[in-house]
Amino acid sequence: MQIHTEVEDDSRFQGHAEFMRQAIALATENVTGGRGGPFGAVVVKDGRVIATGVNRVTASNDPTAHAEVMAIRSACQRLGTFLLEGCDVYTSCEPCPMCLAAIYWARCRAVFYGNTAADAARAGFDDEFLYQQISRPISERSLPMAQMLAGEAQASFAAWQETPGKVRY
Amino acid sequence: MQIHTEVEDDSRFQGHAEFMRQAIALATENVTGGRGGPFGAVVVKDGRVIATGVNRVTASNDPTAHAEVMAIRSACQRLGTFLLEGCDVYTSCEPCPMCLAAIYWARCRAVFYGNTAADAARAGFDDEFLYQQISRPISERSLPMAQMLAGEAQASFAAWQETPGKVRY
Repeated sequence: MQIHTEVEDDSRFQGHAEFMRQAIALATENVTGGRGGPFGAVVVKDGRVIATGVNRVTASNDPTAHAEVMAIRSACQRLGTFLLEGCDVYTSCEPCPMCLAAIYWARCRAVFYGNTAADAARAGFDDEFLYQQISRPISERSLPMAQMLAGEAQASFAAWQETPGKVRY
Repeated sequence: MQIHTEVEDDSRFQGHAEFMRQAIALATENVTGGRGGPFGAVVVKDGRVIATGVNRVTASNDPTAHAEVMAIRSACQRLGTFLLEGCDVYTSCEPCPMCLAAIYWARCRAVFYGNTAADAARAGFDDEFLYQQISRPISERSLPMAQMLAGEAQASFAAWQETPGKVRY
């Protein structure tokens, strides 16, 4: 594994081959079964598989149905929480920016991946392009973005600030 | 609007206040109704609202249930496609990296936003932190990430390359 040697003893950094092999098998079966793209993911907690996911973008008409997002959604439903603290994600390919941000929002502990974003790009997927786009200032992205009604929009955050007992996330 | 003056005549860059006001109203009502965070989004095509979304993270135990993701998923279901070409997203706040990548994957045409990621950060949300994290090399992120079984993982992409008639996305 390409990890920092000084933290190799930390259990957070110890990936287990059985879980990665399951993620890879899910990815390959998703392709050979004609169900979608070559991506699979497994969420693991305390040495047990909590949930799995495969790419369902084309099959379910959902551009957000990437393997990691599917696995995170499923794990959250199973555990009855929106936080996956202590959970590791094993994914057949380095997460795209959408999936990586979802992993951060879910507070997962660590990510283990097989293929890289560069491998995905060679296979025809936009992962590397998206990493480049999202790292740029708004004005330098290919996607047109513009702010409007900034003053009126503040009302939403003001309402949030004024609400007692809200559930933060 | 903060846009490039040379493209102001392009319809892609013309946001319409009525749609932004709807997104802001959805965001505020989501808070005052106790249903979730201060975020709302509207997907518009050909001058019509195709779908709306609000933040449902805590209400549905789904860390991916941000307003833009919800609106995109709903719009795709309504239109029966995983591509939202020609669709504009109006969102009460600048999309987080997860939502921005989802908007790219869905091939939306443009994004109009009210609050900024900096505003969101001041309200207690991690948007700015995530933009910083995702722009960094893997080894410099707070989330531990490690590659493993790279050789075996290639099988998934090989299966994809070898599959005739696959649906690309």
